[in-house]
Amino acid sequence: MRINVLLSPLNVDDLYFTGKTSVIIDVLRATTTIITALHYGAREVIPVNTVEFAMKVSGNAFGGQTLLGGERNTKMIEGFTLGNSPLEYNTDNIMGKSIILYTTNGSKAIVKAKFSANLFISCFNNMKATAELLASLGNDIEILCAGANGMFCIEDTICAGRLINEIKSIRQDVELTDAAQASMVLSETIGTDIYRMLSECEHGRLLIKNGFEEDISYCSVLNNINLVASFKTGMIKKFLIPDAEQNIEN
Amino acid sequence: MRINVLLSPLNVDDLYFTGKTSVIIDVLRATTTIITALHYGAREVIPVNTVEFAMKVSGNAFGGQTLLGGERNTKMIEGFTLGNSPLEYNTDNIMGKSIILYTTNGSKAIVKAKFSANLFISCFNNMKATAELLASLGNDIEILCAGANGMFCIEDTICAGRLINEIKSIRQDVELTDAAQASMVLSETIGTDIYRMLSECEHGRLLIKNGFEEDISYCSVLNNINLVASFKTGMIKKFLIPDAEQNIEN
Repeated sequence: MRINVLLSPLNVDDLYFTGKTSVIIDVLRATTTIITALHYGAREVIPVNTVEFAMKVSGNAFGGQTLLGGERNTKMIEGFTLGNSPLEYNTDNIMGKSIILYTTNGSKAIVKAKFSANLFISCFNNMKATAELLASLGNDIEILCAGANGMFCIEDTICAGRLINEIKSIRQDVELTDAAQASMVLSETIGTDIYRMLSECEHGRLLIKNGFEEDISYCSVLNNINLVASFKTGMIKKFLIPDAEQNIEN
Repeated sequence: MRINVLLSPLNVDDLYFTGKTSVIIDVLRATTTIITALHYGAREVIPVNTVEFAMKVSGNAFGGQTLLGGERNTKMIEGFTLGNSPLEYNTDNIMGKSIILYTTNGSKAIVKAKFSANLFISCFNNMKATAELLASLGNDIEILCAGANGMFCIEDTICAGRLINEIKSIRQDVELTDAAQASMVLSETIGTDIYRMLSECEHGRLLIKNGFEEDISYCSVLNNINLVASFKTGMIKKFLIPDAEQNIEN
């Protein structure tokens, strides 16, 4: 299996993903928040690429059981119930709800890859579960780093590198592109101490400055959530692994 | 001074470069070829972003003293005199000539950054000369890696990382973005043996397959050409360092 990493959503157009098996990573914080929301009982997360569309979907669909969540440049959005901090998402406020999520980079990256045949959401928290599923499928993989406004960001790349490492620990037949190899090297050098790396990267420093130190700790935890998340027909849901054969397009 | 690396020309739009000091890198092979052409006496190199424009410029301007050079996906272009191998460019065939250059990634990346206040061309061959000038200017720097059809490529990133290392060896006050830091780490790990890295990267393997092994050796040589190349008003020329004060916009 061949693994590639896209270091920015702007590297390719939407149709690039057609028929592919893709993984979206936005460690700080969209994909960590999505995994947390599903873990604590959200029925689904609906990623959107504009605030206006978030408002529209919220008003019309899902039987009123929706919550608007997200951020614009790390700040809460007026009229939204939840921000983009995973620590805001817990059983009390999201159990059974549909979360409509808009974020500056992550939700847009997911929507960009919507034509993928299989589309998964990952972060450090659910990395092992995701790696095991991807290794068992054996398809070629595109890992899309959400980045920062179209630019490279180190935390998503290092998370991608670590995910590749996990897959390689299970399968021998992994072929890496330049970007996949670079991601692994970064993970094995400046990525070994995840908490430190998240604290020192550009976006981490910005989050700390805005009062989100605890998010950094939370996002740095490895494999504490045993859950695979999959995007299909506009919604991200828990992926039920026993049903893998039925859910997957090879 | 702050140094950023853009890992793909698609990460930003043309206007991003307005007023900035930028460096373009396409190790295999456009920027290596440009530095070689100027070193062997070409009057100037005119980078273009379409083959059609190359034909048009060639027919109308520069008093007939033009040569068309370049490639499309590593192959010669019909009607062009020269390819994109630096080994084709020597005193006998290019002395005093204007070279119109079209390549799949490099020439387009240069044209993309055309609004830069100061725009330099670099590769391993002229790295030290470029680093010394950039360090003496002290401006913030954007290093644009030409990449491969909008995707990351490891050789340009490692060349960027090594250039940053050279600048840091001269100046203490260098601030790095995530991408600049990642480029340095890659240079210091898998980039220490340049020849090997160029032979093993995706584009290097393709060049070897197409018979360009010698280009890999040539492109891997560090600091054998003591020349700074600058793009201004559509043309790349030798940058005369004693005139730096007059040529530079701070």
